[in-house]
This record gives sequence, structure tokens and C-alpha cells, in this order.
Amino acid sequence: MTNPHPPPSSSSSSSTSFLLSSVDSSNPSDHLEDMRFGRFVIPKASIFSRTALSAAFVNLRPIVPGHVLIMPQRIVPLMADLTTEEYTDMWLLVRQVQGMLQRHYNATAFNVAVQDGRAAGQSVPHVHVHILPRTKGDFQRNDDIYEALEEWAPRIDMVKERTSIDVPDDKDRVDRTLDMMAEEAATYRRLLEQSTR
Amino acid sequence: MTNPHPPPSSSSSSSTSFLLSSVDSSNPSDHLEDMRFGRFVIPKASIFSRTALSAAFVNLRPIVPGHVLIMPQRIVPLMADLTTEEYTDMWLLVRQVQGMLQRHYNATAFNVAVQDGRAAGQSVPHVHVHILPRTKGDFQRNDDIYEALEEWAPRIDMVKERTSIDVPDDKDRVDRTLDMMAEEAATYRRLLEQSTR
Repeated sequence: MTNPHPPPSSSSSSSTSFLLSSVDSSNPSDHLEDMRFGRFVIPKASIFSRTALSAAFVNLRPIVPGHVLIMPQRIVPLMADLTTEEYTDMWLLVRQVQGMLQRHYNATAFNVAVQDGRAAGQSVPHVHVHILPRTKGDFQRNDDIYEALEEWAPRIDMVKERTSIDVPDDKDRVDRTLDMMAEEAATYRRLLEQSTR
Repeated sequence: MTNPHPPPSSSSSSSTSFLLSSVDSSNPSDHLEDMRFGRFVIPKASIFSRTALSAAFVNLRPIVPGHVLIMPQRIVPLMADLTTEEYTDMWLLVRQVQGMLQRHYNATAFNVAVQDGRAAGQSVPHVHVHILPRTKGDFQRNDDIYEALEEWAPRIDMVKERTSIDVPDDKDRVDRTLDMMAEEAATYRRLLEQSTR
């Protein structure tokens, strides 16, 4: 797999970061440095974990308390652009952070979501996993959190694009026949076998 | 980690499966067998990939063409209940299936989402990852797909529970100060360091 976007070797040198403190080894954040999230600069003070290939940071506009983001360090728009090592590293960091948030917020549940590409509502063309701690009754309608997620953008001055075509009404969606499902599964099975040969 | 829900050794013996064909080695689906998805039985014809620990299956009520589910074979409600091996295996299967769907549907994007627990909208207490191929303009408003996802349940006769409390209006959500963000990140950093010590 080619790497069209090598990681920036000096991410903070020309940044708009507000935090330019000198390194202080007594401060646990000082092994961190400012990082790029697409065209944005994430100041190191907002970053709370960094692995070999990924990072976790807090949100300018969290939808719920504890709403954080996990990203690969390399700036690529889609998960398919990640190497398997980057992909696995990112999901293992999601797991670790989710455990920490569960304990800290006594969360009973989480929404874990990736808008993988612009047509899926991605606001910044840099892979990122949303982690949203949930507790019973935190949203009036459960799907309101998705509407909030859709409106989420790193800054309030960013306008989200809207796309077009009708969504079928829920009452018009009916269970499919098992034959239809079997046929679809057979197609996927064949395609997967071809791709892994 | 304990395993309160060992995998069923004979998942189809007392199932409501409609497919009880004998094994035919010429049929590539015949190395598969019916599997449990919570209290449901997924007939083997609906399953299109099975790894050591996970499985991929088509949907009775897809929201978009190619909307499929990935689950661990073991019946556990939350991702935190999975072993690291099960978790990693599941996400690697998500990656492989996503690549196949991307090629098959010429998808330009994907929503990849986990409702991890009941308070997050989970309809079946068995971990599952939704993979939803997207193309530009497939939904009138992009977040309609989330509403459809929220309404998704394995069967149309399942009633989804609603939760309560207000979601803040988007205009009332403002960018936070960097001090607030730095403080939150420092808390998480400390908690992570404690948990990995």
C-alpha cells in the first residue's frame, strides 16, 4: 500500500497552536506535541493519548460529556487508506479509551461511529472514530444523538453539506424473504473468496 | 476475562432455522452453519463470511443496499466483554468486508457504527457492527441514515425503546475554551496512565 500522506515530521512548527510551552519532564503531557487533524492543529494539551500510530483527543464541541475522537496520526481520508497496522492500532486505542471513559462516567453504553468519507457525513477528511458515552435517558429520543453527531464539526463556523434523495419511510420497509437474503449472501461470499485468493 | 457465555456448541439443533439442508461440499456455504445472534438464529445462507471468532451476515431489513452486520461468534452484549482477540478479529473482518462492498457497490463512503449497549440504541444484546455503504445523494439529509439506523431492528415486529431528556439545540452548543479542553485531556491522561500501570 502506498503512502501518499507521510506523517508530518514537525507538526507544530508552522501551526496555529496557542500552546508553545517548553518541555517540562514533570508534566505528563510533554511527551506529546501538537498534531494535525486534517487541516486543523490539535494542541498537545487536547491530546490525552498517543500510541505509535494513533492519538486520542478531546473535542471542541462535544455532543455528550466524554465525547472524544481517535485518529490515526497519518492524514488520510478513509479507513481503507490505512495500513492494517494503523487500522488495528487505532481500534485498540478506541478499546482502551472506551474502558477509561466507562469507568470515569459510569457509562452504561457507547455509540462508536466512523463517518468514513464525505458521503457518509465526514466533516474532516482525516479518519476519526467518535466515542460517545451514553447513559439511560441522556437523550430524549435515542436517535437525537445521531442528529447531533451529524451536526458535529470541529468548529462552529463549519457548514455541513446536505445531500439529496428520499429515505424510505420506516413503515414502507418490510422484512425481506430468506431467498433474497441467501442470494445476497452468496454474492458476497463469492466476492470475498475472489478477493482473498 | 471470564466467559459467561460460551459459544453454543450446536447452534442449529433447536433453532427455528428454515434451512436444514445436508452438507454438500460443492456448495461454498456448506462449511458454514446456522449461528446465534442474540436470541435469533441466523441461517447459514445469510452468513457470508466466518472467521475463527467472528461472522458476517446479511440483513433482514437493510437500510441501504449492502447494509451488513459483523458480529463476534460469542454472544456478549458489549464490546468490553470481548477478549482482545475477539475484538481484533471482528474489526479485521469489518475491514475485509468493507473493501468487498466498496468494490461491489462503488461506494464512495461508509457509515460504520456500533450501538454498544441498550442506552446507545442497541436492539439485540449481542455485539454487532453495522456497515453501511454510502454514495453521494443517497439520503436527502445525511443524518436520515442515522434515524433509519436507530429504527433498525432485526425484525419489524420489534418495538424500540425510547429514552428521555432533552438534547441541546445545536445553536446552543458553542465552542469550548482551550482551558476547558486541556483540563479534560489532563484528566483522561491521568486515568489512562493509572489504568495501564
